[in-house]
Amino acid sequence: MGKDLDQEVADFSTSINEDQQLYWFDIIGSLAHCKMLRKIEILNETEAVQIQKGLVQLLRDIEKNQIDLSIYEDIHSAIEMNLKQKIGKPAEKLHTARSRNDQIVLDERLYLREKIIHLIQEINGLQKGFLNLVQKYPDLVMPGYTHLQPAQPVLFAHHLMAYFFMLQRDAERLKDALTRFNQLPLGAGALAGTSIPIDRKYVAQLLAFPAVQVNSMDVVADRDYLLEILGALSIAFLHLSRFGEELVLWSSPGFQFIIIDDAFTTGSSIMPQKKNPDIAELIRGKAGEVIASWISLVITLKGLPLTYNRDLQQDKPPLLRAINECEKTFHIAARLINNIQPNPEKMEAALQKGFLTATDLCEYLVGKGVPFRKAHEVVGSIVREQASQDKSLHDLNYEELEKYIDCIDREVMVVLDEKQSINRKQSEGSTSPREVKKQIVIAQKLLDQWKAYYTCIEKEWQSKYELLLSGE
Amino acid sequence: MGKDLDQEVADFSTSINEDQQLYWFDIIGSLAHCKMLRKIEILNETEAVQIQKGLVQLLRDIEKNQIDLSIYEDIHSAIEMNLKQKIGKPAEKLHTARSRNDQIVLDERLYLREKIIHLIQEINGLQKGFLNLVQKYPDLVMPGYTHLQPAQPVLFAHHLMAYFFMLQRDAERLKDALTRFNQLPLGAGALAGTSIPIDRKYVAQLLAFPAVQVNSMDVVADRDYLLEILGALSIAFLHLSRFGEELVLWSSPGFQFIIIDDAFTTGSSIMPQKKNPDIAELIRGKAGEVIASWISLVITLKGLPLTYNRDLQQDKPPLLRAINECEKTFHIAARLINNIQPNPEKMEAALQKGFLTATDLCEYLVGKGVPFRKAHEVVGSIVREQASQDKSLHDLNYEELEKYIDCIDREVMVVLDEKQSINRKQSEGSTSPREVKKQIVIAQKLLDQWKAYYTCIEKEWQSKYELLLSGE
Amino acid sequence: MGKDLDQEVADFSTSINEDQQLYWFDIIGSLAHCKMLRKIEILNETEAVQIQKGLVQLLRDIEKNQIDLSIYEDIHSAIEMNLKQKIGKPAEKLHTARSRNDQIVLDERLYLREKIIHLIQEINGLQKGFLNLVQKYPDLVMPGYTHLQPAQPVLFAHHLMAYFFMLQRDAERLKDALTRFNQLPLGAGALAGTSIPIDRKYVAQLLAFPAVQVNSMDVVADRDYLLEILGALSIAFLHLSRFGEELVLWSSPGFQFIIIDDAFTTGSSIMPQKKNPDIAELIRGKAGEVIASWISLVITLKGLPLTYNRDLQQDKPPLLRAINECEKTFHIAARLINNIQPNPEKMEAALQKGFLTATDLCEYLVGKGVPFRKAHEVVGSIVREQASQDKSLHDLNYEELEKYIDCIDREVMVVLDEKQSINRKQSEGSTSPREVKKQIVIAQKLLDQWKAYYTCIEKEWQSKYELLLSGE
Amino acid sequence: MGKDLDQEVADFSTSINEDQQLYWFDIIGSLAHCKMLRKIEILNETEAVQIQKGLVQLLRDIEKNQIDLSIYEDIHSAIEMNLKQKIGKPAEKLHTARSRNDQIVLDERLYLREKIIHLIQEINGLQKGFLNLVQKYPDLVMPGYTHLQPAQPVLFAHHLMAYFFMLQRDAERLKDALTRFNQLPLGAGALAGTSIPIDRKYVAQLLAFPAVQVNSMDVVADRDYLLEILGALSIAFLHLSRFGEELVLWSSPGFQFIIIDDAFTTGSSIMPQKKNPDIAELIRGKAGEVIASWISLVITLKGLPLTYNRDLQQDKPPLLRAINECEKTFHIAARLINNIQPNPEKMEAALQKGFLTATDLCEYLVGKGVPFRKAHEVVGSIVREQASQDKSLHDLNYEELEKYIDCIDREVMVVLDEKQSINRKQSEGSTSPREVKKQIVIAQKLLDQWKAYYTCIEKEWQSKYELLLSGE
Repeated sequence: MGKDLDQEVADFSTSINEDQQLYWFDIIGSLAHCKMLRKIEILNETEAVQIQKGLVQLLRDIEKNQIDLSIYEDIHSAIEMNLKQKIGKPAEKLHTARSRNDQIVLDERLYLREKIIHLIQEINGLQKGFLNLVQKYPDLVMPGYTHLQPAQPVLFAHHLMAYFFMLQRDAERLKDALTRFNQLPLGAGALAGTSIPIDRKYVAQLLAFPAVQVNSMDVVADRDYLLEILGALSIAFLHLSRFGEELVLWSSPGFQFIIIDDAFTTGSSIMPQKKNPDIAELIRGKAGEVIASWISLVITLKGLPLTYNRDLQQDKPPLLRAINECEKTFHIAARLINNIQPNPEKMEAALQKGFLTATDLCEYLVGKGVPFRKAHEVVGSIVREQASQDKSLHDLNYEELEKYIDCIDREVMVVLDEKQSINRKQSEGSTSPREVKKQIVIAQKLLDQWKAYYTCIEKEWQSKYELLLSGE
Repeated sequence: MGKDLDQEVADFSTSINEDQQLYWFDIIGSLAHCKMLRKIEILNETEAVQIQKGLVQLLRDIEKNQIDLSIYEDIHSAIEMNLKQKIGKPAEKLHTARSRNDQIVLDERLYLREKIIHLIQEINGLQKGFLNLVQKYPDLVMPGYTHLQPAQPVLFAHHLMAYFFMLQRDAERLKDALTRFNQLPLGAGALAGTSIPIDRKYVAQLLAFPAVQVNSMDVVADRDYLLEILGALSIAFLHLSRFGEELVLWSSPGFQFIIIDDAFTTGSSIMPQKKNPDIAELIRGKAGEVIASWISLVITLKGLPLTYNRDLQQDKPPLLRAINECEKTFHIAARLINNIQPNPEKMEAALQKGFLTATDLCEYLVGKGVPFRKAHEVVGSIVREQASQDKSLHDLNYEELEKYIDCIDREVMVVLDEKQSINRKQSEGSTSPREVKKQIVIAQKLLDQWKAYYTCIEKEWQSKYELLLSGE
Repeated sequence: MGKDLDQEVADFSTSINEDQQLYWFDIIGSLAHCKMLRKIEILNETEAVQIQKGLVQLLRDIEKNQIDLSIYEDIHSAIEMNLKQKIGKPAEKLHTARSRNDQIVLDERLYLREKIIHLIQEINGLQKGFLNLVQKYPDLVMPGYTHLQPAQPVLFAHHLMAYFFMLQRDAERLKDALTRFNQLPLGAGALAGTSIPIDRKYVAQLLAFPAVQVNSMDVVADRDYLLEILGALSIAFLHLSRFGEELVLWSSPGFQFIIIDDAFTTGSSIMPQKKNPDIAELIRGKAGEVIASWISLVITLKGLPLTYNRDLQQDKPPLLRAINECEKTFHIAARLINNIQPNPEKMEAALQKGFLTATDLCEYLVGKGVPFRKAHEVVGSIVREQASQDKSLHDLNYEELEKYIDCIDREVMVVLDEKQSINRKQSEGSTSPREVKKQIVIAQKLLDQWKAYYTCIEKEWQSKYELLLSGE
Repeated sequence: MGKDLDQEVADFSTSINEDQQLYWFDIIGSLAHCKMLRKIEILNETEAVQIQKGLVQLLRDIEKNQIDLSIYEDIHSAIEMNLKQKIGKPAEKLHTARSRNDQIVLDERLYLREKIIHLIQEINGLQKGFLNLVQKYPDLVMPGYTHLQPAQPVLFAHHLMAYFFMLQRDAERLKDALTRFNQLPLGAGALAGTSIPIDRKYVAQLLAFPAVQVNSMDVVADRDYLLEILGALSIAFLHLSRFGEELVLWSSPGFQFIIIDDAFTTGSSIMPQKKNPDIAELIRGKAGEVIASWISLVITLKGLPLTYNRDLQQDKPPLLRAINECEKTFHIAARLINNIQPNPEKMEAALQKGFLTATDLCEYLVGKGVPFRKAHEVVGSIVREQASQDKSLHDLNYEELEKYIDCIDREVMVVLDEKQSINRKQSEGSTSPREVKKQIVIAQKLLDQWKAYYTCIEKEWQSKYELLLSGE
C-alpha cells in the first residue's frame, strides 16, 4: 500500500534474525497446508506436486546454506518468495486460506514441541548425573544445613536426590505445557477463519496434532503457551541457581566438601593460586536471563486488545534466548556433576564440629517418654553448656550425660554418633540408607517413563514428517 | 539460646500478620498429626483425646475472635502456646517428630488446595459471564481487529468466546499445579526425617493427600508450587488486562460498542460530564501486583542453598496478596460482564466504514480459480482506489466491479455484505454462527466437567476434615 | 592450573560475543595504563613506545576486520594475545598492576560514557521531533482524555509537549547516572589494590575521569551504575510505550486523529485493505525487552557476596541488548513523529461530541460566586438531561440555559465553545496558547543546554583520546 | 451519575487503605490551596479563615484517632466531607480550581519528600554502623574473596568500607530523585489547567517547592518519580542482600568470621543446638518485595494513554509497601551491624590456609624486573607444587624459594606474610591501613554533608508548614 518501507524501518521491524530459526517448521507446515489444499481441490495434482517438491528442494537448499534468509522481512515471506522463484505461479496459491497470523503460531508450536522434548531429555540427563553421583557415593554422610548452619547429618546421596525430584517436577511442567498447547492453530486465518472449506482436522492429523484449536480469535491473539514454558524454565533455573550456589559454597575453603575438576574451573589473570568455580557461578548467574525472558513477554502482552498486534513479534527474542540458554546450561550442568568429586574427610570433620545429633538425642528421650518440648529444653541446656566450653556432645561420657538426664541407658552413646544418626531415621522419605535406596528405585522408574514418553512421541512426529517430506 | 529478641527484632521477623490466615489449616494438620502419634503410641489415648478436643476448642475460639493471634511469632507457636494454656502438659508432646519447617509447608499446601478450588470456581464464574453474554447476543456482528485496525467482520459472541477459552487454560493450569503439589510434606522434620517411627501414609490418608513427598530435604527447601501457582495467575491476569483494555476502548466515544452499567463507572470531581470505566481500568491495572508477586518470590529464592532458610518466610506476603487480588478481581470481572450492554448501532456503523469484506472478495476469487496472491493484488488496488475517493466497497455496483475483475458473477454482491461474511465462513473454529454454536456446546461441557471435578474433590476433603474435627 | 577447558566449557563461559564490542575502550584503557606504567618506570621508554604503537596498530587492524576476535575467551585476552604476537615480550609487562576485574569495569565505564551521550542526543532528537510537530500545528484543538473518555479541550501542541518534558527527565536521569559513575575504577587490581606504586590520578586525568573510585573492593564488586542506567532507560521506554499506544489509538478508525505516513505502516498478507501502524506497535512492544534487561541484572546480582563473582559476566548481554534497542527505537520514534500528520476535521468532530466544556461552565459559575461543588452539581444535571436526549450543550440556547441557572449572562455562550475554552485557560502550565508558547521557549532553551553539555564533554574526551592514540 | 456503586464495587475500587497514610499531606496541601484562593479572592476572608481553622481542627481529630477515614472512597473525599460537616458551606468552595488528579500527585510528592529525607537518614545510620565497626577494628586482617575463593588479604575495615560507599550512592540517587520531582503539580486541574486565575508560584512558595511543573498533562499522567525512587531503593536492597549473604556466610561454621549477638539470631523448634542468623537472612530475602514493587508499577504503567487513568491508583500499594520495608530494614540492619563481633582467630586461620600472598610475590618479582606474565607463570608453578603436597607458601624457606627464582633477596619472606601484604599496598583506594584511614576521613565528611543537607531542607519545610498551620 504505497511507498516501500525504507531500510531503517525495515531493519527495525524485521523478525528474520529470530524466525529464520523456524524455517524447518515453516516448510513442514506449508507441506501439510499444501496437501490439504489438494484434498479440498484448491490445488490440482500438478500444482500440489510442484509445491511439495519445491518446498522440499528449498529445505535442502537452506540446510546447505545456499539461501540467504536474512534479507527477507520474515521467514514466511522468505519461503514464499524463494518458492516462487523455484516453481513460479503455483506458489501464489499456497497462501490461500491462511495468514501470517496463524502461520507464525503454527511454526512456534511445531518448534516448541521439539524443543520441549529436547529440554526434557536434557533435564533427564542432569537427573542421571545426580543419580550417578548418588550411586557412586551411597554411604557418604555430610552435615545437612538449615540457615547455612549445620542441622542434622544427612547422606550426601539424599541431598543430591532432592535435586533429582526438583528436576522431575521441572520436566513434568514442560510436559503439561506441551500437552496443553499441542493443538493445531492453522486455519484461523487472520482472525476470523475462512470461507474456503478447509479441513483443519486433516491438517492436524498430518502434523500429529491431537486436536484443533477451538476459537480462531484466541489462536491469533494468545501467547500464553510461551509464558507457561518460560515460567517452567524459570523455576528450573531457580533450581539450578541453588545448585550453583551450593557448588560454590562446597568448593570454597570454608567447606571443601567437593573438588571440581580443573576442566570446569579457571584461574586468575593476576592471582596465580586461584581455582575458581566459574561454571558453577555462571549456572547460578544465568537464571537472570531466563527469568527476565518471562518478564519481557509479560510486559509486551500486558493490556493488548485482541487479536494480533505487531507487538507480538517481540515474543521471539526472549523465547529463543531462553530456550538456547536452557539447552546449554542443562547440558553443561550434567557434565559438571559428572566432574565433581566429594571429599569425605572434610565432610567428616564438619560433622564432628556441630551438635548435629542433638535432635536425635531429643527423639531418643521422646522414646523414653519425655514430652518433646521438655526433651528439647534439656538437650538445649546441655548443648549450651558444652558450647560455652568449646566442647561437643562427644566430649561427654555416659556418666556425665546421666547427670543431666536420668532416664537414659547406654544405647544413648550410639544415638550421639553422627553416622549412626542416618541409620536410625525411620520415616518415609528420610535420609536413612534404606529410604534413599527407595528413592533411587523410584528415580530409575521415572527415567524409564520419560524415555518411553519421548520415544513414542518422537516416533510419531518422525513418521508424519517423513510422509510430508516424501510427498506420499 | 540466650537473650530474648527485642521488640523491633520481633516485629521485623514475625510472620504472624500473614500466617494467621492459615490457622484453620495449621489446626487441621495438627489434628491429623495427633491422630498418627496416637496410632504409633507416642500419645496415649487420654493425651490424644485432650489434644484433639483442645485443638477443636481453640479453633472455635479463634473463629469467635476470642484469641489475639497477632502477638505471637508465627501461627505454629500461637496454636501451640494456646493449646498448652488450655490443656497443659500433653500439649508439649504434639510437636514430636515434626518441625516448623515441614509444618509450614503442610499449612501452605492445605490452604492452597482450597484456594485453587475456589479460584477455579471464580474463573468458572467469569467464563459463565462470558457465556451468558454470548447467549444473549448470538447474532451481533462487529468489526474484528488486528493492530487495532478493522480486519474482518466477526460475531461479538465469537470475540467473547476467545476469552472463555483463555480462561479455560487458566483454570487447567491451576488444576495441574494442584495435582502436582497435592502430596503430604509432613514427616520431613527439620530436613532429614525422624528416628521416630511415624506413619506418613496414614497422615496422608487422613488429610486426603494422594501421595507422600519422596525426599525430606526437597520438602523443606522447595517453594516451586507457589511459583507455579503465581505463574498461572499471572497469565490469567494478563488475559484480564487485555479484557480490561477492550472494555475501556469499547466504552470510549471512538467506539461506543458497549455501555457499562453506572454501578461500574464513576464520575469526576471536576468534570461533571464524565462517566469513566474505572472498574475495567482497575482490572487492567491490577495485573502489575499479581505478576510482581511472582517476581518477588523468584528473587527471594534465587541462589538459596538447601534446605530451609529464613528468607523463605518471605513467600507469604506476595502469595497471599496475589490470591486475594485474584479472588476479588475474578469475581468483580464476572459481575462487570453481566452489566455490559452492547450497542448494535455503533457496531453496525463501524462495520460499514472499513473494507472489512475485502478478504471475502479475495476468497471468492480464489473460488473462481484466481491464485490467492493475484486476488490479493487485484482487490488491493480496488480498495486503494475507493479509499482515495473516500468511498467504500459498497459504493461499487456490479457493473463497476466487473470492470476490475472479469471472472465474477452476481453472487459477488452478497460476498461484500459484512453480515453475510460471517455466514460464509466455513472453517472449524471460525466466526460463523454454526461454529460459534459448537463452541458454546463445548464450553458448557467444560463447565460441567469443572463442576464434577470440584464437587468430588471438595466432598472428599470435607469428609476427611469432619472426621478429624469430630475426633472419630 | 591443569587441564585446558574443553570446547563446550569454553563456549559456555566465553564473553567475547558481547565484550568484543568494547575493543576500542579496552585499547584506550590500555594506552593510558601503559603511559602510567612508563611514568612510574615499570616500563622503559622503548617498551612503552612499542606497546603504544602495537596497540594503535591493533586498533586499526580490528577496525579493518583483519582480526577474528571471536576465538578468544574475552576481549582482554584477545587484545593481549594479539599484542604479544605483534610486539613480543614487552606485551607481557602490560598487565602489571591490573586485573581483568578492574579492567572490565573500566571498559564498561568508558563505553557507557559514550553511549549515554549518544542516547541523550537521540532523546534530544525525539524531543525535537515533538517540538517540530508542535510548531507546525500550534493552534490545533483536540479532546484531552482521562480514562480514555473526553475530558476537556486541549491543544494538540500541549499534548505533545507533555512528552517533551517526560523525555527531558529521561535525559536528565541518564546525565545524573553518568555524573555519578564517571570515576576511574582502574587500579583496584583483583580487589585489594596493588603494592606497585601506580598513579591512579594520572590515569584518571589521561582518560578524562574527574575522580578516582575510593574503595578497591567496591570497584570490583559493584554493578549498580548499570542498574541505574537500565532503570532510567526503562522509564524512558515506558514513556515510549504510552506514546506508541496513543499513535495506535489515534490512527484507529475510532479516532482517526492522525495519518501515519505509509513508510511507517504495513499491509496484511491476507487482508488487502489493511494499513497497520506496525512501527508504533513495535515501539510500544519493545518496552518488554528493555525493562527485562534491568530485571535480568537484578536477579544476577541478588545475594552475591563481595567481590568479583563470575556471575557478573552476565551483566553484558542485557546491558548491550538494552542500549542497542534504545538507540534504534529513539531514532525511529523521532523519524516516525516527523511522518505523522494530524487530521483536524476528525479532531473537530470529536470535540463536538462530548460535553468537553462542562468544566468551563462550572468555572464560569464560580466566577459568578457559586461554590464549586454547587456548580458541579448544577452542570452535572444539565449534562445528564441533554445526554438522555442525545443532545449536546450546544443544543441549548441562552434562554434555555437561563432556566437552569439564573446568575448567567450572555458571555456564557462563548464559554461553551470548545475552541474558546483553550483561550480562557489562565493557569501557568495550562493548555492556553500563551502558556504553550512559554513551554516552547523553555523547551528550546533546554535543548540548547543539552547541546552545550555534550559538545563540551565530547570535546574533552576527544582531545584526551587523541593524545593517547598519538602517543604524545 | 446515576446509581450508587454497590459495596463490592466500592471495596474493589477504594484506595483509602493506602492513601489515608497521606492525610497530613492532603491537609497541608489544602491549607496552601485555600490561602491562594483567598489571595485571588475566590474566597473571602471569613471563608478562608473558616476553612483554615476547620482543616487544622480536622488534622488534630485524625491524629487523636477521632475520625474513621476508612469508610471513604479516598483521602480527598474523606477530608472534604469531614470539613463540610465541621464548617458547612464554605467547604464547598475549597475544591475550586483543582481536581483529584492533581491533588493526589501533590499529596504523593509532599509525602515522598519527607520519606526520602527519612530514608537518607536511615541509610546514613547504616553507614555510621559500618563506620563504627571499622573504627573498632582498624587493623583486623581477613581473606578477601573473589568467586568465594580466598584471593588476597584485606583489612576487615576495608571490606566494610566498600558497603559504606555503596550506600553513599544509594543516598545520592534518592537525593537526585528528590531534586528532580520537588516541583509543584497543583494547578494542573484535571489535565488542562483552569480558567480561574490561580497563582501557582504562590502555592509553590507556600509549600517550599522550588519550581512549578511546566505542563499540566504531564503532571497528571506521569508517575516516573515513583519509579525513580523505587529503582533507587531496589539497588540499595541489592546491596543489603549481598551484605545479608555475607553475614550468613561469615557466621556459618565454615567461616566463623563473626559472632552475631543472640538478640539477632533464633533457635529451632526441633534442633536444640541451632543459632540461626535469621535477621541477616530476612534482610537478604526482603529484596524480593522491594524490587517487585518497581516491577508492579512498571507493568501498571506500560502502554497507558495520557492522561489520568484509574490504573494509576495502583501506584500506592507497591510504593507504600516498599517504603515501609526499606525504613524497617535499613534501621534493623544498622542495629544488626552494631551487634556483630568479628572473630580474629578464625580470620587469621583462614588467612594462613590459602596462597593469599601469591600475587604479592608476583608484584615483588615485577619490582625485580620480571615481566608480570612471566612472574605469574613462575609463582603459579610454585603454588601448584606446594598445593599438590598440601603445603602452603610458608612451608618454603628462603633457600628453597631461591631454587625457583633466582632474582630474589631475603625481603621476599616479608612479602609472603599475609599481614604485611596489607601494609605493602600502595595504590590509592587499596586495602593498606593508610588508604583505609583516608577513606574514613572521606566518609566522615560525607556524613557531615548529609547532615547539613537534611537539616537545612527540613528546617525550611518545617517553617513553611508552621505558617500554614498557624493560619498566619
